[in-house]
Amino acid sequence: MSRTDEFLDAATKVLGPRGLMTDAETMSPWLTDWRGRFTGQALALASPASTAQVAALVKLCRSHGIAIVPQGGNSGMSGGATPDKSGTAIILSLRQMNSIRRFDSDAGEITCDAGVILQTLHETAEAQHLRFPLTLGGKGSATIGGLISTNAGGTQVLRHGSMRAQVMGLEAVMADGSVFDALIPLKKDNRGFDLKQLLIGSEGTLGIVTAATLRLIPALADRAVLWAGLDSIRDARKLLLHAQRFAGDALEGFEVIPHDSLRAVLAQSAQARPPLAAKHEWHALIELAADASSVDALPALSQSLLESAFEAGLVEDATLAASDTQAEAFWTLRDEIGPAERGLGPAVQHDISVPVADMAEFVTATVPKVEAAFPGTRAIAFGHLGDGNVHFHVRAPSDEEPRNWEHGKGKAISRFVHDEVTAWGGSISAEHGIGQLKRDELARLGDPVHLQILRQVKRALDPDGLLNPGKLIPADDGRAHALAPGARTQ
Amino acid sequence: MSRTDEFLDAATKVLGPRGLMTDAETMSPWLTDWRGRFTGQALALASPASTAQVAALVKLCRSHGIAIVPQGGNSGMSGGATPDKSGTAIILSLRQMNSIRRFDSDAGEITCDAGVILQTLHETAEAQHLRFPLTLGGKGSATIGGLISTNAGGTQVLRHGSMRAQVMGLEAVMADGSVFDALIPLKKDNRGFDLKQLLIGSEGTLGIVTAATLRLIPALADRAVLWAGLDSIRDARKLLLHAQRFAGDALEGFEVIPHDSLRAVLAQSAQARPPLAAKHEWHALIELAADASSVDALPALSQSLLESAFEAGLVEDATLAASDTQAEAFWTLRDEIGPAERGLGPAVQHDISVPVADMAEFVTATVPKVEAAFPGTRAIAFGHLGDGNVHFHVRAPSDEEPRNWEHGKGKAISRFVHDEVTAWGGSISAEHGIGQLKRDELARLGDPVHLQILRQVKRALDPDGLLNPGKLIPADDGRAHALAPGARTQ
Repeated sequence: MSRTDEFLDAATKVLGPRGLMTDAETMSPWLTDWRGRFTGQALALASPASTAQVAALVKLCRSHGIAIVPQGGNSGMSGGATPDKSGTAIILSLRQMNSIRRFDSDAGEITCDAGVILQTLHETAEAQHLRFPLTLGGKGSATIGGLISTNAGGTQVLRHGSMRAQVMGLEAVMADGSVFDALIPLKKDNRGFDLKQLLIGSEGTLGIVTAATLRLIPALADRAVLWAGLDSIRDARKLLLHAQRFAGDALEGFEVIPHDSLRAVLAQSAQARPPLAAKHEWHALIELAADASSVDALPALSQSLLESAFEAGLVEDATLAASDTQAEAFWTLRDEIGPAERGLGPAVQHDISVPVADMAEFVTATVPKVEAAFPGTRAIAFGHLGDGNVHFHVRAPSDEEPRNWEHGKGKAISRFVHDEVTAWGGSISAEHGIGQLKRDELARLGDPVHLQILRQVKRALDPDGLLNPGKLIPADDGRAHALAPGARTQ
Repeated sequence: MSRTDEFLDAATKVLGPRGLMTDAETMSPWLTDWRGRFTGQALALASPASTAQVAALVKLCRSHGIAIVPQGGNSGMSGGATPDKSGTAIILSLRQMNSIRRFDSDAGEITCDAGVILQTLHETAEAQHLRFPLTLGGKGSATIGGLISTNAGGTQVLRHGSMRAQVMGLEAVMADGSVFDALIPLKKDNRGFDLKQLLIGSEGTLGIVTAATLRLIPALADRAVLWAGLDSIRDARKLLLHAQRFAGDALEGFEVIPHDSLRAVLAQSAQARPPLAAKHEWHALIELAADASSVDALPALSQSLLESAFEAGLVEDATLAASDTQAEAFWTLRDEIGPAERGLGPAVQHDISVPVADMAEFVTATVPKVEAAFPGTRAIAFGHLGDGNVHFHVRAPSDEEPRNWEHGKGKAISRFVHDEVTAWGGSISAEHGIGQLKRDELARLGDPVHLQILRQVKRALDPDGLLNPGKLIPADDGRAHALAPGARTQ
């Protein structure tokens, strides 16, 4: 029996016959990321049913030198859960581990297996008049483990923070098969640096998240949605500051939309209506939210926010959604920008961030700079102004062949945009992570000290490099070794 | 010239003649921690004036094999900034680095050198109608660097989180003298796991924090302080849940005080008045806070919280402070518990936490258990119920000689309390850190996997062990090596 067969045999003993699949048909859907950018091969698809099975499997992989690609809903944006083409790694799916282990509605805490789907978590919380305050487009497939491993964001980060802020406790299987158990939620715990924080956002390169204790907050009682027409994104920044001072914790979302994006949405949808009569260069979509403790004050708060914004000359025009249907319609205009932009032809998209205070200036400066550097392109920036998170799309000139353009000029444009955002002190990955999509760009643009620490921690916790190889951690190019402790001369 | 003299000579060149002191008189105040529990010796007291000087000094220390004890205000609770008795380490004081580098009052962000004192930060923020939402007793000496390195807590954690939650950006000098620069505040940044988080709470064992960007929030506009009399700490838990649902984000503090502690305070102060007429077994001190956006609603909110608590039978009696003077008087009763308890004789004190949901049951079960195990002692638990953070004091029997008792029976009691809190899944250090005070207890009670990861990260980032040796990271006892990657056989 070959060494590989020995491993598969032993793994089947650990997981049971249905826990390890090697046939091409079963594996196929999990070998390509959902955006269709990356396709790999795998030795097997392992689906453990418990943390103990994960731990036993990891030990087995270690003793056989088999690499592991952890996978949740396979709906990540950066290819972080897709194996490479070698076919020597296994995919370790957490999807069979999908139980709610504990739910304390009084305390507002829920302990979930890593494979619980975000939508299920939402529904479970809502049934007890609670709310899990993070949501995103892929909620029907995204798992808790994947959301933690990528420190996922979404549309409520302004008020509630990203996934990191929701995690009260964590369980993970480390590269040696030991189980790191920090599931018990302690609001204060200073027994050394917080190891949970290392695993959050580590994309499965340091350990495999198997469960988490998450915070829940009181259910949403009501919301108010405003749409404002503005002359510039700089005015949007002023309106954001005003809304923050005025509404404080009630401010849950603040999105900005340029005229061109709104026009694209309106052109492609028969149902869509512009919220305001006249044309405005920029638009802001503002959501205020209230739970039971603050719901009585919400109508007056939103009305006076609107009035004070007019009085202060911060808006050209503005309106408050008169019903929840209208509020949804406003949000649909925002959510349809991506599809509408795609309808206009090929584009390269960038998930970038700069300091919140600088986003308006960044967009104002960078849009014309990109269009000038790549004649015929159209640059569009929109998104989470309150988080400094810009969706920066650059559309191809109309005469380009899509596929060629994306792989040729498109890549040059992305490097240009990443150079700009780095010069502004920003991040080339605001919320989608690095995965395999941006690993080379991180290597190219990352601060050498930052990269060195990433590599040092990776080597310390996964010395054999078996956890999600080829993802996130840029390969060591020798430059770092000159700084690394092992290489110094005294 | 000896190797040590060579080092001192070179360090003086880096720091200037006033930047390196070796005379006993200058060093003396910094060789003993402020609680007077630990005294050490040092080769020199280094006071760099810039991050570049810190980096140059660290490189010099590394090439000479000199250990470094970073120190801020020297007001830590666990001896984390006090050198050992060998006299071979230098103290690296950050106190000369005390500039505000950048202050963006619109964005609510401030970038401070590590040596800026908390009180100065408070005053700087207040001058711009902003607030830094963390405070504690040592605010006149505690530095930003020390607060970050210990992930300090305080009385506002319930609403605003500990120091970790305030840090938006960080700069640190690593063990090889490289400068980790992540000062630019990005609300969303997923370029790998968040290295800032590793340094927060690492007590100077992984790097030396030299600056930070911190968040500021709108100034406090008003507060309401309630005092409630209760039959049991279990009822306090019910009242906490009610207050959380009722007041939401307005709830800023929830402290519990047993009858005995209040009696001790009243007995020792001529000015102190009991807030309520009758005797109650337990008391809750509740603070609601409002900024400009929510201040109008505060009087009605606090009044109806009081009324609804009566209606629901959650309190035996309760009162709302009628003035800010009375509110301060309520808080003084809480703050005087420590001194009043000390006036009653020797006691061992414990800074422990359990899950918030379990604190009432923990106290109810553990107080009699400790008193039964150590006849004649009196156990008192009070503190931050909203954070699950118990101050657990055990007073000596009246016939004991203080010094002998603390070092003999007192230590046995501490081990007993730590065993109990560990059995409840809690932490032996809620907010004071490990330092040298609790390092052996962490070694004894820490989860082996947790300890192994602490050691692995420490070895990776400080392979020579020169950063704050003897603090936080338990010495490797060989047990861990059996698990460690380097030691395995394939």
